[in-house]
Amino acid sequence: MTLEAFLTAVGPAACAEIEPRYLQGARYGAGHAAAVLKPATAAQAAEWLALAQRHGVAVVLQGAHTGLVQAATPNGQVLLSTERLREVFEFDPLDRTLRVSAGFKLSEVNQRLAEHGLQFPIDLSADPSIGGMLAHNTGGTRMCRYGDVRANTLGLEVALVNGEVLRFGHGLAKDNSALAVQQLFIGSSGSLGLVTEATLKLAPLPKQSAVALVAPSGLDAVWPLYQRWMGEFGALVSAFEGLSAPALAAAIHVQGGASPFATELPPYSLLIELSSELSPAQLNLRELLHAALESAFESGEVVDAALDNDEGLWGLRHAVSEGLREQGAVIGFDISLPRKAVWSFREAATAWLAEHFAPAQVCDFGHLGDGGQHFNLVWPKAAAPLAKDDSLRLRTGIYALVAQHGGSFSAEHGLGPLLQTTYDQLTPAPQRALAGAVQGLLNPGMGLGQFRFG
Amino acid sequence: MTLEAFLTAVGPAACAEIEPRYLQGARYGAGHAAAVLKPATAAQAAEWLALAQRHGVAVVLQGAHTGLVQAATPNGQVLLSTERLREVFEFDPLDRTLRVSAGFKLSEVNQRLAEHGLQFPIDLSADPSIGGMLAHNTGGTRMCRYGDVRANTLGLEVALVNGEVLRFGHGLAKDNSALAVQQLFIGSSGSLGLVTEATLKLAPLPKQSAVALVAPSGLDAVWPLYQRWMGEFGALVSAFEGLSAPALAAAIHVQGGASPFATELPPYSLLIELSSELSPAQLNLRELLHAALESAFESGEVVDAALDNDEGLWGLRHAVSEGLREQGAVIGFDISLPRKAVWSFREAATAWLAEHFAPAQVCDFGHLGDGGQHFNLVWPKAAAPLAKDDSLRLRTGIYALVAQHGGSFSAEHGLGPLLQTTYDQLTPAPQRALAGAVQGLLNPGMGLGQFRFG
Repeated sequence: MTLEAFLTAVGPAACAEIEPRYLQGARYGAGHAAAVLKPATAAQAAEWLALAQRHGVAVVLQGAHTGLVQAATPNGQVLLSTERLREVFEFDPLDRTLRVSAGFKLSEVNQRLAEHGLQFPIDLSADPSIGGMLAHNTGGTRMCRYGDVRANTLGLEVALVNGEVLRFGHGLAKDNSALAVQQLFIGSSGSLGLVTEATLKLAPLPKQSAVALVAPSGLDAVWPLYQRWMGEFGALVSAFEGLSAPALAAAIHVQGGASPFATELPPYSLLIELSSELSPAQLNLRELLHAALESAFESGEVVDAALDNDEGLWGLRHAVSEGLREQGAVIGFDISLPRKAVWSFREAATAWLAEHFAPAQVCDFGHLGDGGQHFNLVWPKAAAPLAKDDSLRLRTGIYALVAQHGGSFSAEHGLGPLLQTTYDQLTPAPQRALAGAVQGLLNPGMGLGQFRFG
Repeated sequence: MTLEAFLTAVGPAACAEIEPRYLQGARYGAGHAAAVLKPATAAQAAEWLALAQRHGVAVVLQGAHTGLVQAATPNGQVLLSTERLREVFEFDPLDRTLRVSAGFKLSEVNQRLAEHGLQFPIDLSADPSIGGMLAHNTGGTRMCRYGDVRANTLGLEVALVNGEVLRFGHGLAKDNSALAVQQLFIGSSGSLGLVTEATLKLAPLPKQSAVALVAPSGLDAVWPLYQRWMGEFGALVSAFEGLSAPALAAAIHVQGGASPFATELPPYSLLIELSSELSPAQLNLRELLHAALESAFESGEVVDAALDNDEGLWGLRHAVSEGLREQGAVIGFDISLPRKAVWSFREAATAWLAEHFAPAQVCDFGHLGDGGQHFNLVWPKAAAPLAKDDSLRLRTGIYALVAQHGGSFSAEHGLGPLLQTTYDQLTPAPQRALAGAVQGLLNPGMGLGQFRFG
């Protein structure tokens, strides 16, 4: 029995009694695991990964288990949780960097940094672990200003299945002294090695922000407004989001509040946020945004707008997911598209759904500022549940349209078993072969993780 | 004769008569080549790389030949120049992206983009090709605001020695649909494959900027000023440079102008640039910078300053390299350091040089904003020239001090034969082994390029 031999070798640290939170995925049902391991150090993690490799035992890595692509939900393997990897929290105020163990959660990191006026500027609705964020290169709502996890990572420590613990990078912003091997681990879905620690680039907390929810006169007005405001405000723009009417209506409903608009909900709304390190006395963002909205109102491109300095509009934005779940079963698509293809994709996908999956309600929203889209569907409670085969057919159909429109089938949630078939179908064979060879170098025998890049 | 067979197979496109510019390096002497190839398409490049691989012929890649680490200066190999790779120049104003062939030069790209109010925001003294910039992940003076080439690259096309032409990425900002194999080519020194095309992320041209050259009261005042101004101005800071007195004096001398300071040159000066997409009517950067300087003057942290809206101060900054060459032989070190170690490294290196290489004059300058340092030395014309062995001993000694201070021996010029020994000495064996295995996957037989990562 290879599993038994492995568990004997690990000793009492291997726990067979597994709390439900390790097994229950954030969106897509529960898994099961042979045992759960919780290493407290990178060396211990590497030792156990090497033992598993030698015994031919499959291991799945898990951070805070908030992922949406099933990468961390085990399917019978041994589960390795990073939640006890909390040895390192080394903050350098002059370089504005943080060396931090993988087990810390984003919210903890930002709570500790706030008193120094700094943040790790990846803004998500979920609260993942730092290791999980690295494994999936999360993006979030403020990516148009700050970039993704990759752009904010200056160094890594990883534990490999050969038992080595390797450090990459010196935590320096400007460094080209090595081949970019460390980049491979970012977005690798826990299928190359375990990220045990990262050195993160921090950003100052803005001293002020101004937020508006805007009703454009129609879809035709969206990109002209986007271009004008990005051109005018540039680096001040910290978010530029889009909300379809059904998505906004669901958020309003679940919050039990009133519409922020005086008029009826527009087919598509924009949420724009400006923020700055300058004080309002140096530059008043609220006035600046107000003037831009006035001018767009006068030109007829904007028909209504709500301007907000507090958290109300963001609260509404972040209530969309919960609002949709209230309406029925959510079928999520985390995609990105060239901006010129956003409306044509939306039209084509909506028409295709109407023909093939009539009950599906398109409730899309997303990050216009960086091109990410949550093309989410609600399958109403009143409709007959979607059979597994039909569900696969629906997903395949939508992803084919994404590809036809030059888009990506995975924008910011990363890769996991939920996307394996799509990856295999849409990734050209030579690229897959090369990625598979790289994966084979680090994870020979494929005992680690649940995603095959080859 | 394998070379002859290869050249016969390529046919008349292989040119044995080679203009000097392909052989004369930008800083470190001339090389020699068996022939020069100038493919016009990615497919042609891939075909020739595969032919060379089959015939066991070594190939060196070259862009605009402006590099400073000898990576593109051949040492007897066949030279492949990318200067005819100019098929693609596809600009998307809505996504603010540019698909561009490797053979375009940075200056050409930015000239064409300027009429659209956009730029590829990597600011360098040299004028490299886009392909060369990718191969070395160049940084430059505005990296503290815009990031390096890696942070501004959204897609790649590469020609491999197996004859394949592969595309990576969809040109999208938010995309995690693949293993980050494309990242390996960025900063790979032309030793994995040939970058034939890239999709670049563009930035708006600022509508205004304000520049000041500042004399702090002493080295002790530099980091407090840096922290205060970065905290106050944040994303408005587009450059934060440092200049030692000998570097600034050399620049003033070669320009034949007067000192920008009323008082004598300070031991170390700062050049700070603010820039913004806002108009001066919305936010007056010159006033903002002036107010910050006044306040620092009053607190005694700044003793003199020159404020400038035109190109004068930048002209001076960019004249440093030429100024140093006028003084003698330049020994360049392109390093980066944690900020807390910058002064202690400088002191240790200056003391070590005084003891072992007394004629060497420290004329350092660099990018305080991103941690990059050009710890450049001038070996005076009056001194006896440095013997080759001594030169190696000098370099090894300085790089050892860089490593002791937690720094990187290559910040923004990339890797080439000039740094091979240093790389081998300072990179831990397991990291080298892994990088070498990755290189071996793409470049089996090591027929391409001049840098060994393993």
